[in-house]
Amino acid sequence: MINFQSDYLEGCHPKILEKLIETNFKQSSGYGNDEYTKDAVLKIKKACNKEDIDVHFLVGGTQTNAIVIASILRPHQGVVSAISGHIVDHEAGAIEATGHKVLTLPTDDGKIQAEQVRELYHAHWDNPMRESDVQPGMVYISNPSEMGTLYTKAELESLSKVCRELDLPLFLDGDRLGYALTSPYNDLTLEDIANLCDVFYIGGTKCGALFGEAVVISANPLKRDFRYTMKQRGSVLAKGRLLGIQFSVLFEEDLYFKICGNAVDYALKLRHAFEEKGIELHGHSLANQQFPILTNAQMNVLKKKYGFEVWSKVDESHTVTRFCTSWATKTEDIDALIDDIRLM
Amino acid sequence: MINFQSDYLEGCHPKILEKLIETNFKQSSGYGNDEYTKDAVLKIKKACNKEDIDVHFLVGGTQTNAIVIASILRPHQGVVSAISGHIVDHEAGAIEATGHKVLTLPTDDGKIQAEQVRELYHAHWDNPMRESDVQPGMVYISNPSEMGTLYTKAELESLSKVCRELDLPLFLDGDRLGYALTSPYNDLTLEDIANLCDVFYIGGTKCGALFGEAVVISANPLKRDFRYTMKQRGSVLAKGRLLGIQFSVLFEEDLYFKICGNAVDYALKLRHAFEEKGIELHGHSLANQQFPILTNAQMNVLKKKYGFEVWSKVDESHTVTRFCTSWATKTEDIDALIDDIRLM
Amino acid sequence: MINFQSDYLEGCHPKILEKLIETNFKQSSGYGNDEYTKDAVLKIKKACNKEDIDVHFLVGGTQTNAIVIASILRPHQGVVSAISGHIVDHEAGAIEATGHKVLTLPTDDGKIQAEQVRELYHAHWDNPMRESDVQPGMVYISNPSEMGTLYTKAELESLSKVCRELDLPLFLDGDRLGYALTSPYNDLTLEDIANLCDVFYIGGTKCGALFGEAVVISANPLKRDFRYTMKQRGSVLAKGRLLGIQFSVLFEEDLYFKICGNAVDYALKLRHAFEEKGIELHGHSLANQQFPILTNAQMNVLKKKYGFEVWSKVDESHTVTRFCTSWATKTEDIDALIDDIRLM
Amino acid sequence: MINFQSDYLEGCHPKILEKLIETNFKQSSGYGNDEYTKDAVLKIKKACNKEDIDVHFLVGGTQTNAIVIASILRPHQGVVSAISGHIVDHEAGAIEATGHKVLTLPTDDGKIQAEQVRELYHAHWDNPMRESDVQPGMVYISNPSEMGTLYTKAELESLSKVCRELDLPLFLDGDRLGYALTSPYNDLTLEDIANLCDVFYIGGTKCGALFGEAVVISANPLKRDFRYTMKQRGSVLAKGRLLGIQFSVLFEEDLYFKICGNAVDYALKLRHAFEEKGIELHGHSLANQQFPILTNAQMNVLKKKYGFEVWSKVDESHTVTRFCTSWATKTEDIDALIDDIRLM
Repeated sequence: MINFQSDYLEGCHPKILEKLIETNFKQSSGYGNDEYTKDAVLKIKKACNKEDIDVHFLVGGTQTNAIVIASILRPHQGVVSAISGHIVDHEAGAIEATGHKVLTLPTDDGKIQAEQVRELYHAHWDNPMRESDVQPGMVYISNPSEMGTLYTKAELESLSKVCRELDLPLFLDGDRLGYALTSPYNDLTLEDIANLCDVFYIGGTKCGALFGEAVVISANPLKRDFRYTMKQRGSVLAKGRLLGIQFSVLFEEDLYFKICGNAVDYALKLRHAFEEKGIELHGHSLANQQFPILTNAQMNVLKKKYGFEVWSKVDESHTVTRFCTSWATKTEDIDALIDDIRLM
Repeated sequence: MINFQSDYLEGCHPKILEKLIETNFKQSSGYGNDEYTKDAVLKIKKACNKEDIDVHFLVGGTQTNAIVIASILRPHQGVVSAISGHIVDHEAGAIEATGHKVLTLPTDDGKIQAEQVRELYHAHWDNPMRESDVQPGMVYISNPSEMGTLYTKAELESLSKVCRELDLPLFLDGDRLGYALTSPYNDLTLEDIANLCDVFYIGGTKCGALFGEAVVISANPLKRDFRYTMKQRGSVLAKGRLLGIQFSVLFEEDLYFKICGNAVDYALKLRHAFEEKGIELHGHSLANQQFPILTNAQMNVLKKKYGFEVWSKVDESHTVTRFCTSWATKTEDIDALIDDIRLM
Repeated sequence: MINFQSDYLEGCHPKILEKLIETNFKQSSGYGNDEYTKDAVLKIKKACNKEDIDVHFLVGGTQTNAIVIASILRPHQGVVSAISGHIVDHEAGAIEATGHKVLTLPTDDGKIQAEQVRELYHAHWDNPMRESDVQPGMVYISNPSEMGTLYTKAELESLSKVCRELDLPLFLDGDRLGYALTSPYNDLTLEDIANLCDVFYIGGTKCGALFGEAVVISANPLKRDFRYTMKQRGSVLAKGRLLGIQFSVLFEEDLYFKICGNAVDYALKLRHAFEEKGIELHGHSLANQQFPILTNAQMNVLKKKYGFEVWSKVDESHTVTRFCTSWATKTEDIDALIDDIRLM
Repeated sequence: MINFQSDYLEGCHPKILEKLIETNFKQSSGYGNDEYTKDAVLKIKKACNKEDIDVHFLVGGTQTNAIVIASILRPHQGVVSAISGHIVDHEAGAIEATGHKVLTLPTDDGKIQAEQVRELYHAHWDNPMRESDVQPGMVYISNPSEMGTLYTKAELESLSKVCRELDLPLFLDGDRLGYALTSPYNDLTLEDIANLCDVFYIGGTKCGALFGEAVVISANPLKRDFRYTMKQRGSVLAKGRLLGIQFSVLFEEDLYFKICGNAVDYALKLRHAFEEKGIELHGHSLANQQFPILTNAQMNVLKKKYGFEVWSKVDESHTVTRFCTSWATKTEDIDALIDDIRLM
């Protein structure tokens, strides 16, 4: 069985394991106050081409979203998100557990647009009974979105402009950021994101690390005391060096981008193969996840050899499925799958 | 510089790294639904000699304490702890952040006794204005305690008896449990703990793992829905296998106990060396941490070659210090330190 | 200007003021431990024809909803509500502030049906990734609903049956309960509600009291420790007698039902007048709120003499408005308004 | 039986009842947007001799403390209080329920001093592991304190100075403020308090109102969005006019101060009578509560005719008791009690 079910099926890039072995018996300070972490911070600042950012390392995505959001909002505020956003239905109420409502915006493609934010903002502030309502306090987006679509530079610039005008911090969930930035359809750089967002994170778990997400805070008012919230949520790793080592390796000689770029190449080849076969794809996913709409017969054929995810039912005979590639996907496995699609 | 500052200065036991390498490209399900995790659960059940327990793996201690406590208490209840308990002053208000007060009991040695719990319970329930007070809802202890002391079997039996009588779940924080159970002064087994406590955890981070704590739930009413709270707190690792692999290795052929036992041997040798030198030790620590009370002159001598922690000031010329051994401590380093103590 | 904007424009029924004056200098215990409160509890038990219920008095609706819901749910659970429910968008995120998500169901008429609850329940429990989702933990309805519609006895029986089968406590928000129970279209009694719901409240603020809501808990497991949560939320009135006195007066010789019944008569006369004039009413409101859809011209005419609420825009020339009657509405004011509708 | 058990045994000052009757059928806007509330705000501004303050009305003390504190602190911060503070052990964990720890300071007399705040602040910020600790975020005091003692102007000035220097908002709980300000031993004015504190409240419940507390916010950064937190905590009264009417009456022609002043006179007479009899008083209470230490025999004599509170046991034969006077205390009742003390 060859699995394309998700991008967290394997361990990590071998270079990380090598570094873990090499450093295993070196003694270092705990809680991220170590040399490896310092090195990783420097490399990320360099990759963002920005000195005045704070970088913190966390273990996973839900944890990161909850901590970033809780550190920004005041008790009566909520976070604005696309209705399809990961924080809405996939994080077990983690945001609500910190006392905050998620204010949802409709979306067809997983993205939200600047005008939607502006409208929601004014709908709140123009309401004379606004105090009965949850005040919008920040904006959450992800890139790629839950549907694999990518924000264009123009879209992100508009969002950023509106958010700054309305004093709503903009937070970009970059769980799979490596796969967005290396898509041939992408026109954003890490530097753009660091400049346009107030806070974002660079996902490690799904992009070559054993685990780990690097939070980058650009906006000065959001920097203060961030580590307290991390600590309070039980998210400061005793052996913080593990996160430092991993990001230090991933940001050495662009490894992060190289391995993510390969995965996206494979995914787009796969997309092409489905399209050639006349199989429609759900949404316009341009990164490492592809959502072919398969007939029951096609599903039955493919599931003999391949693992993939059932995403949603279309009708009795059609199903949206998800195939993920990753930093760990092998050329021969993609080739085999493409051959089998052609032969279907 | 040889460091004895803490027991989380290095990576992990080499056998864990070997297993990570061996399994790195094997694909497995996420979120702990993998074969390694299943294997680790089986081994822990065997080590506890108890089938009807639930075992869950979490990343760190503060996270574990907050999740266990939040999963048990109702909103108006608090958790009873020794005033010196880790949850009181060392976890950044993590318990309060889940809405609960920590109800503290005085202690000289880091432990609490059954009678104290009974008194606090009755002080609450005998108060006609009890609804203005926080209701005691569970009891938290740690073994070894924050001061390195150990609960005897008799003490834990008494506590357990009172807690069950009063319907207060008993939670044992086993952050350094390996070092407690392998002390020659200990008379408790893992099986005893599983039988006497309603929930406890077996610490991995400080006992040979890169990170990880194994929560064991014995009491049936506490088992339900535990994973939801884990997920909501962002504590279900995408690559849950990492926790499974580590505990599977640690509980293979008693590795966990062997490596912790070594560390305790070293620590007790160290204790002996201090005592022989006429240096008083703070408290009666019988596990891997020792707290010698050093003069300024002694501190100056030792800090040239050794790292250790300043614990608390006694007076202008005396300081309580902490020396930790761990699974990673080397014989030659302990020998060197003991020689230097003798020569002081 | 004669106001029909809401049902909380005036003070309280004169008999309550009389009783406040009569008792003003009598000394009584605080926090609801007084004779007036005991008397009110007895009268409510009698009105419910049920001995084994707990009755507590709170100050307002949002407070009551938050306390009841927080006292029932475990941290990972959410409350199921119609999308139009008061707790969704009108309480400033009070439910989320207690850590819980509101799980919404679509509705056309403000009510939810038993089958919707069953489907949502199964959608959750059939999801293999259910732990990423918020677990449904109870069901919230209001009667009358936000749109003024009434649950029939058959509907409430079905809901109750499904909720008990699925172990989801059923909570009825009775903010305007008096106006529901006295509608000629209603077939439910207070006794039915006490038997079919696990907890509900009898609204006082909008039904003749200065303020106050009487929470009735029928389900035994929900009774325990309720006053702790009240106290913790700052909702135990020092002079609890004020609530006792008010409900004692309201439930003396059916005063509550008499004054609410009058208000509903007025509202239905108003409804009839609008209908006769060919003015459509939004929804099928059968209690003390009526929602005529007025043209701009009609609005301009009426707003010269009458206060009413703009509910929502239909199109450029039509608006849903709300006219409320209450225990304080005067016959001459209703007559004047009906005359003016006819003359429009 | 004549009761001196507390200062909330009766209803309210008759002038308030008169005003409630007079205004009962006048229609007004809800939620505090009414003329009575506006009038009360103006009067309080005048009494504080300060225009640039925000005034909000809440129902009770625990509610007010929780809302003010939750509106100020960030999630990782705690509130500093005397160990005897009302928020520590008398509010059912209301502060912890909003996610915050109470950081306690020792006290002999119920007050805290500027230097204690400075030390706690530096102990936190000088700690290299400070992120494991809860950051002090504001200071809570009450005047009179829980023990009836009064802050001198010099003490409050020092506290205010330190708090402003350290950027810790200073909040004064004025549950019984009327009784502090009218004590002959007091040298503070309402204006002083408004200038020296960042936020405080003027207690109504215990000082002549049926219920109600007036929150005064002096510090500009604390003003923003306060009503959202009120609403979210279910503390915006639908008939907000009830609070406006009460404070409007209490601040008409200094009624608040007159009635509180009488109560303090009575209490000090009582103190004198106990002292003359050779009965020691616990603490140095200078307002409306007195804490005589009675022998069992004395208690038995007095409890035949008078209600009072048992405060704490001193030894087998002595008990600290509490006698409260209030706006409702009658001259003849005080005279009778004093006679009986003399005859004991």
